[in-house]
Amino acid sequence: MLQLLLSFTCIALGVGMSIVNPGPKFPPTKGEVWPKPQEETKEAAYLTFNPSHFTVKLLGENCTILANAIQRYSYIIKNKSGLHRQRPHERRKRRNGAHRHDENYEGAVEELQIDLTAPCEDYPHFEMNEEYKLNVSTISALSSPSIWGIVRGLETFSQLFYLSDDRNELRVNKTRINDFPQYSHRGLLLDTSRHYISVSNILKTLDAMAYNKMNVFHWHIVDDQSFPYQSERFPELSQQGAYDSSMVYTKEDIQRVIEYARDRGIRVIPEFDVPGHTRSWGNAYPSVLTECYRQDKVVGLGPMDPTKNITYKLLRDLFQEVQTWFPEKYFHIGGDEVELDCWRSNPELREYMDKHNLTVPELHALFMQNAIPLLANDSEVVVWQEVFDERVPLSKDTLIQVWKGSWISEMVTVLTAGHRLIFSSTWYLDALGSNWPDYYWADPRQMVYDVTSNRTLLNGVVGGEACMWGEMVDDRNVQSRVWPRASAVAERLWSANTLGRRSFFDTLPSEVYHRMEEHTCRMIRRGVDAQPPTGPGFCIP
Amino acid sequence: MLQLLLSFTCIALGVGMSIVNPGPKFPPTKGEVWPKPQEETKEAAYLTFNPSHFTVKLLGENCTILANAIQRYSYIIKNKSGLHRQRPHERRKRRNGAHRHDENYEGAVEELQIDLTAPCEDYPHFEMNEEYKLNVSTISALSSPSIWGIVRGLETFSQLFYLSDDRNELRVNKTRINDFPQYSHRGLLLDTSRHYISVSNILKTLDAMAYNKMNVFHWHIVDDQSFPYQSERFPELSQQGAYDSSMVYTKEDIQRVIEYARDRGIRVIPEFDVPGHTRSWGNAYPSVLTECYRQDKVVGLGPMDPTKNITYKLLRDLFQEVQTWFPEKYFHIGGDEVELDCWRSNPELREYMDKHNLTVPELHALFMQNAIPLLANDSEVVVWQEVFDERVPLSKDTLIQVWKGSWISEMVTVLTAGHRLIFSSTWYLDALGSNWPDYYWADPRQMVYDVTSNRTLLNGVVGGEACMWGEMVDDRNVQSRVWPRASAVAERLWSANTLGRRSFFDTLPSEVYHRMEEHTCRMIRRGVDAQPPTGPGFCIP
Repeated sequence: MLQLLLSFTCIALGVGMSIVNPGPKFPPTKGEVWPKPQEETKEAAYLTFNPSHFTVKLLGENCTILANAIQRYSYIIKNKSGLHRQRPHERRKRRNGAHRHDENYEGAVEELQIDLTAPCEDYPHFEMNEEYKLNVSTISALSSPSIWGIVRGLETFSQLFYLSDDRNELRVNKTRINDFPQYSHRGLLLDTSRHYISVSNILKTLDAMAYNKMNVFHWHIVDDQSFPYQSERFPELSQQGAYDSSMVYTKEDIQRVIEYARDRGIRVIPEFDVPGHTRSWGNAYPSVLTECYRQDKVVGLGPMDPTKNITYKLLRDLFQEVQTWFPEKYFHIGGDEVELDCWRSNPELREYMDKHNLTVPELHALFMQNAIPLLANDSEVVVWQEVFDERVPLSKDTLIQVWKGSWISEMVTVLTAGHRLIFSSTWYLDALGSNWPDYYWADPRQMVYDVTSNRTLLNGVVGGEACMWGEMVDDRNVQSRVWPRASAVAERLWSANTLGRRSFFDTLPSEVYHRMEEHTCRMIRRGVDAQPPTGPGFCIP
Repeated sequence: MLQLLLSFTCIALGVGMSIVNPGPKFPPTKGEVWPKPQEETKEAAYLTFNPSHFTVKLLGENCTILANAIQRYSYIIKNKSGLHRQRPHERRKRRNGAHRHDENYEGAVEELQIDLTAPCEDYPHFEMNEEYKLNVSTISALSSPSIWGIVRGLETFSQLFYLSDDRNELRVNKTRINDFPQYSHRGLLLDTSRHYISVSNILKTLDAMAYNKMNVFHWHIVDDQSFPYQSERFPELSQQGAYDSSMVYTKEDIQRVIEYARDRGIRVIPEFDVPGHTRSWGNAYPSVLTECYRQDKVVGLGPMDPTKNITYKLLRDLFQEVQTWFPEKYFHIGGDEVELDCWRSNPELREYMDKHNLTVPELHALFMQNAIPLLANDSEVVVWQEVFDERVPLSKDTLIQVWKGSWISEMVTVLTAGHRLIFSSTWYLDALGSNWPDYYWADPRQMVYDVTSNRTLLNGVVGGEACMWGEMVDDRNVQSRVWPRASAVAERLWSANTLGRRSFFDTLPSEVYHRMEEHTCRMIRRGVDAQPPTGPGFCIP
């Protein structure tokens, strides 16, 4: 600890004779995209942007999601690129014809033609198509066979604009982009149980996810500490289990989050973690939890009791309600860190295990085997890796979330067994001392390939999630803790192998640092309270 | 790094069979004071508070600072104790006479009598008197021979109130307090050069300092990266050296900060760090900086040039202006981390050193010896420890700020030489992975006594400062980075040896954790964006 303090001390004040110029450590790029597109050709030629002489023209399909996206990004380009902050006298400096001697100047962007070549889908979904093509010129063109590709392309289009050096005008270089994600599941877990996060903060988080082309909001909505999900069927759960009557999510709140996410091409996967991490359920329903014993005395309540019908009845009815509210096909049923010692300590459970000839891990497996079928028929399931590790029979469509150490061997085992996985082990954002470059290096497919040389296996690695556990974050600091650190994960998952950093010890190219400066300031201008990415600098919101 | 990530992983999800109840990890105390008073006697008997039947009566002196403090704390007790958030139907529950069967109930606090027994001082100053006596009862009494003691006592008074369990009324226990600080210099350094911090954020920082009874705002106002101090005499310094024309502190801004601090008994010590950490000065005045050479070629600008008259002329005139604006007698002249290699590389400086038979550290000493007398005659000086280490002759009143490793031997050396010091080595808040308990253990006098057993030496340890260097903080996250971590330092410096934690490895008593929960939520209710102190929990703002 002392060493840690001291090493930070040195970083803080800077030592030695490095001759650096005053000012920001990494001057931001201008109009670079985060996450980096798969193929991008940029010319020195540039165009200017005048909001009053710009139109969007639809060549293909239309729908509400598209109309909303156009409105959103028109507003962002016009009002959130820094231009609106100028004082009038500064703006006046530039006159018509000021470009006449600038050979790179090619006039204004007059139009964006959007060609959506297939009807809109209702909701974003697993393995949705997010590819798009973008050509920026006087008449610009964005096309995709999917509404989700169009939404991603509009994000890219909005990021290409930058202020001229004199801050008098918005510019964009002539650019051709062909883009698609390397991983289809690019998520952020937010834990709203250890601390309550307000709905407006969740919506801002969804905005920021869209700015990073992330597409899964993994809502770890309840846990041991509090139960903010306000059930209609079981109102006692939040009445007794929420921190406060003001700290709940109503049906309307949840629907608002889902609709907001849908507009941004973001799936909302609810997690109701069972049978462990359920203490807050016990405030209203103590009988579904196991009594833990120490020396023949009950010392508290532990995981759900896997031997009682009432447990499964509660789960069945609650899951049914949740699945009515969440359109998402995938449901995260948890299954991590079950306190097996508590089960072992309980005389009735010991008797049950003796009778059925079960070990304690087998009892966990039995619970999961009973609980999963309580979900709707067409559901797909996400589980934490323990459920796989304890050999619960799982359908091949189940996603295994790898979060523990020894993740490479775990991934290989999961994939060899024919399962698919999402990766999180090195992406826990609650590591407060870690900054975004620490989240940047791990490419899960690359790690698997490095030890197996087997390309076929890699298809099972469908993506990953950055995890913001809530012990040390609440409404006041969650945004600055998540952003821009989760942006590193977002770029890894979208752009992947184009970026070259394969181990923790590889140096990250400096272009990434410069681009991160621009991206962070862009998020700040758009209202996200991101923290400074790397060192001294500034951002005019 | 991986180990760090993994260890956090375990903390995050919690492992093993610890039977914890759901809900907050450390339920907050009710009406406990932070920092802990020297002597406090609390009875089970309690009073209630009804703002419309409460008066403040002055028995002694009066002045604007006192009137402002009474207004401020009346507002806080009435509006920031949580009571105002109730819904009307909840409040209605309690009726007159509801206490009739409660033997601990002793009626309402009707009056606070304030007895300031000596005239107000104009500004807070080094070694000002901050002691006070407080007796809370139906007619409460606060007395002190100093306005600063009254201000501290009002802070304590405001912290004693707490909400009843049903949240229907404010209560306060019958309490007697006799309080004074163990250390007279209890500071917070804020660096406004690496990132600009807005004036409103600085004012909020001063509020939070007052809530923690800290009394020195060490304003590290300029550095290599930017020069936000807007000089009237040398406007080019900020015109060329600030990050942006919007990112400056005008004379009015500075006066506002000073007046706001004064009302709260907080001194404002400006730091103009010379001769290193001055690159941003060179944007406007490159000639005062040294040209650094590598293989006979100039590679950049380094520290100030100690051989040029123009350097001292600029410093003299600028210091004069700064000291006109800041009423504080102490001036922090910096003196840390001078890039001596740059001086060594410069042919003209080498010639100068040869001619005057000086080593490079002696050149640094010479610079400081020349620069310090440029301050006003009655000034006192604070310097970073290097200035002492390099044997610059310093007056006995100079404060040496100890910030490097090997702090115990450094402190003993400084004290043995008859100097006074302030301690910062273990209190650098830019150590992002460190939480408040990591800042809690070091008591500088105790550390000196443990190795010297010499009580006389201890008088020279006048206090310490938590240091918030600005590389990774800006307006969006500075509050949550500083608070409540700096609160640990604040309690150490005010309460000191009453608290028992002497080494990093000692366990902190759990009462401190519970009290910290209350204190953090109290700061949040009062508008400070403090981060969660220890783990799961909630705070209703």
